[in-house]
Amino acid sequence: MSQTTNTLTGQCIAEFLGTGLIIFFGAGCVAALKLAGAAFGQWEICIIWGLAVSMAVYLSAGVSGAHLNPAVTIALCLFANFEGRKVLPYILAQVAGAFCAAALVYGLYYNLFFDYEAGHQMVRGSVQSLDLAGIFSTYPNPHITVAQAFLVEMVITAVLMAVIMALTDDGNGVPRGPLAPLLIGLLVAVIGGSMGPLTGFALNPARDFGPKLFAFLAGWGDVAFTGGKDIPYFLVPIFGPLVGACLGAFGYRALIGRHLPINVAATIKTEKPVARAEQRKA
Amino acid sequence: MSQTTNTLTGQCIAEFLGTGLIIFFGAGCVAALKLAGAAFGQWEICIIWGLAVSMAVYLSAGVSGAHLNPAVTIALCLFANFEGRKVLPYILAQVAGAFCAAALVYGLYYNLFFDYEAGHQMVRGSVQSLDLAGIFSTYPNPHITVAQAFLVEMVITAVLMAVIMALTDDGNGVPRGPLAPLLIGLLVAVIGGSMGPLTGFALNPARDFGPKLFAFLAGWGDVAFTGGKDIPYFLVPIFGPLVGACLGAFGYRALIGRHLPINVAATIKTEKPVARAEQRKA
Amino acid sequence: MSQTTNTLTGQCIAEFLGTGLIIFFGAGCVAALKLAGAAFGQWEICIIWGLAVSMAVYLSAGVSGAHLNPAVTIALCLFANFEGRKVLPYILAQVAGAFCAAALVYGLYYNLFFDYEAGHQMVRGSVQSLDLAGIFSTYPNPHITVAQAFLVEMVITAVLMAVIMALTDDGNGVPRGPLAPLLIGLLVAVIGGSMGPLTGFALNPARDFGPKLFAFLAGWGDVAFTGGKDIPYFLVPIFGPLVGACLGAFGYRALIGRHLPINVAATIKTEKPVARAEQRKA
Amino acid sequence: MSQTTNTLTGQCIAEFLGTGLIIFFGAGCVAALKLAGAAFGQWEICIIWGLAVSMAVYLSAGVSGAHLNPAVTIALCLFANFEGRKVLPYILAQVAGAFCAAALVYGLYYNLFFDYEAGHQMVRGSVQSLDLAGIFSTYPNPHITVAQAFLVEMVITAVLMAVIMALTDDGNGVPRGPLAPLLIGLLVAVIGGSMGPLTGFALNPARDFGPKLFAFLAGWGDVAFTGGKDIPYFLVPIFGPLVGACLGAFGYRALIGRHLPINVAATIKTEKPVARAEQRKA
Repeated sequence: MSQTTNTLTGQCIAEFLGTGLIIFFGAGCVAALKLAGAAFGQWEICIIWGLAVSMAVYLSAGVSGAHLNPAVTIALCLFANFEGRKVLPYILAQVAGAFCAAALVYGLYYNLFFDYEAGHQMVRGSVQSLDLAGIFSTYPNPHITVAQAFLVEMVITAVLMAVIMALTDDGNGVPRGPLAPLLIGLLVAVIGGSMGPLTGFALNPARDFGPKLFAFLAGWGDVAFTGGKDIPYFLVPIFGPLVGACLGAFGYRALIGRHLPINVAATIKTEKPVARAEQRKA
Repeated sequence: MSQTTNTLTGQCIAEFLGTGLIIFFGAGCVAALKLAGAAFGQWEICIIWGLAVSMAVYLSAGVSGAHLNPAVTIALCLFANFEGRKVLPYILAQVAGAFCAAALVYGLYYNLFFDYEAGHQMVRGSVQSLDLAGIFSTYPNPHITVAQAFLVEMVITAVLMAVIMALTDDGNGVPRGPLAPLLIGLLVAVIGGSMGPLTGFALNPARDFGPKLFAFLAGWGDVAFTGGKDIPYFLVPIFGPLVGACLGAFGYRALIGRHLPINVAATIKTEKPVARAEQRKA
Repeated sequence: MSQTTNTLTGQCIAEFLGTGLIIFFGAGCVAALKLAGAAFGQWEICIIWGLAVSMAVYLSAGVSGAHLNPAVTIALCLFANFEGRKVLPYILAQVAGAFCAAALVYGLYYNLFFDYEAGHQMVRGSVQSLDLAGIFSTYPNPHITVAQAFLVEMVITAVLMAVIMALTDDGNGVPRGPLAPLLIGLLVAVIGGSMGPLTGFALNPARDFGPKLFAFLAGWGDVAFTGGKDIPYFLVPIFGPLVGACLGAFGYRALIGRHLPINVAATIKTEKPVARAEQRKA
Repeated sequence: MSQTTNTLTGQCIAEFLGTGLIIFFGAGCVAALKLAGAAFGQWEICIIWGLAVSMAVYLSAGVSGAHLNPAVTIALCLFANFEGRKVLPYILAQVAGAFCAAALVYGLYYNLFFDYEAGHQMVRGSVQSLDLAGIFSTYPNPHITVAQAFLVEMVITAVLMAVIMALTDDGNGVPRGPLAPLLIGLLVAVIGGSMGPLTGFALNPARDFGPKLFAFLAGWGDVAFTGGKDIPYFLVPIFGPLVGACLGAFGYRALIGRHLPINVAATIKTEKPVARAEQRKA
């Protein structure tokens, strides 16, 4: 099989597969918990989501730079010279990957969905059925308001983005090399362990919207988008992470990046070849 | 002790020991859970199986390339130039290793098997005794059909194979070096955490058939092969992984491998010396 | 954005952010446990605190050397030539970072604090309310005396400091490179898992005093500082770690460092650029 | 502080401290479980013991080679040219380190021992008090015989030794460098997770005998050595590991080591400088 050059098509395929892998494992473990009686604590769910991200980065980094998250793509475009013309294709691929992986998880757990609903006399599309919609995407803790949920998603995505930039910045301490994707996964897990119970730690518009769209189509209907309230809740895990990632990227550069020793690293690097290549042009 | 060359005999010994090590730890932890009252959640079982795979790869990689799985051996033969004449010896060594390790676990937990059966008035060979046969090999979730089980094993082994190829592909991002076997183990754990409750994540015909054969001989009889139904269920965790591994290897090359930057890696590499050597010839 | 040199201001910002990140994740996971019903065992809490430290070190190491702990700063000043004039600014930044992160966690979990207190008829500032004050900082096991608590904090911080020096000593075995911060986090987790139930493993005066001060101001009042007794308990997790870190640093140099092979490492190194630079001057 | 050469005295201090660190964390986490109500499953106990071993290896490897286990010391003497004259000093240092660390854990948990015994009307030295003696050292599962316990300890120590030799053999796949001690710790954890409920996975005569001797002196008396039966059970976790480690070292060389490609590694290496230096002489 002959090699071809690293095209935008290839990059979109990699983003599609990488984002899909996150949902395959992540939604899968929640399905295992809710439908198949798997015993997991909060940390176990978080470490599976985190390692899912690690594996997805290892899979796709060489081709696409492993953004796997529209918030990361937009932040890298604004703060690390990722090419603007690729932003929309990347985001579409990410959302499509998450959607298809949600469908795959649904297919593999198909019987268990129906048996669970029959056993619990649960009508899909009712507010009660949100419990299973939560396999696919995030809904907020009932104690917090929509504005608070937005704030939480914004803050945790800012932390995510800032620490990812630190982890992939070869000028910040010893370069992490092949360890970086694993550390990014552990970071996701720690965020989930500390703030997850508030909003479900979406952190990623594609991770949330793609599977929500699938749930909408698969019978959960409007309740998938509203979370059973009179509001379009689905916008929160889209725009919270978008704003947060930009804040985090800006914050890292302003507060940490520019204080790094000059001779070690003149520019902020990410471990991602694509981003690196584009930085060189800038 | 003088060194000898790296012969097929040596490679088969390494595959025997490596596959055996997986079962020694993996069947061991299920025995600990079921017979000795060890408190494990789903993730804990999965991480032990995963790290068992990691340790087995570290043990055998230098000699045999650490396939440890007939599905991997066949996929590498078809998609990465592993020598065809070695396929059958490798597979036999893998199955034999898994068989012998199952016997060893049985021997070490011997009294606990009998005390448990006596305490639960369980007759070995009955459908009820499947609970303990599950220490050795995998049986499907009662909610799913045989066709669905085949689909699950095929999909999860395809994911396993594709991500293993990414993890061991020095042209895909920063080479993982000594981290690769650890990451493969974490990958196995994440697959188990997300899809394990459906089929027991066999992923590996030798891991499943070797210990099933032992259980058949050790008194569980036909029920070990059928899972208590009228069908030869044992074929599912053999052929599902075989088909899946080939799909995964092909998929990785077609969707990721050929989009990697040409100057970085012209061919797909695995971290395994044997596979590498054979790729060079091709 | 242009790079500036590595100034004391920048280093204090890095210490502020790094120490804050520890509390953001660490206090966050305890809030998740106590307020949001997250299921965590002792180890899960400890591994989140540990990985929080890892992430904080990765974030700040390149700028400030990632002390993130007044006890470490003072011990490195006394035993590894960290500049004395920087000690006070570093400590103030660490305490301020921990204080602000505690406030942020409080803000994100705001409703859940009040709903929990209402649901449990808990009056903030009462001895009963210590349960939630424990989200922010440490209080001793009721079985032990203040003197014993001091001893525990001293011993565990000595162990922490000595093993950190080993982990970051490039002359002690194979240099750990980018793995060192991860290992430091695992070390913190293991300390918490083995000795945490005695004093809450403060290990760090800033980690404990900053959030305690916040709790004092946020309505817990005197009980935050005394732990509900007639004593200024808050001094224990300040001075125990200070004495312990010095003992650990001295002990490592006297018992391990000076027995390392001369040709490999003539001086004790830490992975931290700042400390290294200052060692060179000495 | 001036550097001295790498003397036997220094090596014994390192073995003392390293073995002590294992017991400090390991016995500590069992004390946390039994005396302080820490919620741990089987895996959590095992991963703490495993990471305790990792930290101890990182602490001592540069000076002494981090045997930390008489069975390893003797096996390396017989199968990897470790100097015979150092065997006894190493073993004495290991046992003394384990003894002193057990005393330290006892001192830190002092009140909790007495409060627990008072609360449970437990008389130290009675068979009932074995429950707390199990904080310090291992006792067998009541379902197995002494001969079976010996077999278990022999087999698991053989596995431990063989895989340690693989992990530290730079000729077996990609050298593990600074990852090796972490992997050794994960190996210990996996052994504990799969076979721990049978004998408590002593794996190490010093780890077991030193703390048992402390328990004998601290009031548990004969029951500490016999486990409440008419037999000197304490000999099992001494001689089982000794025989097992030799089998494992021999097995690795005979079955794996001599099949490694000649050009990569002509001799078996361990990551331990001392062992390496002595191998060169041989």
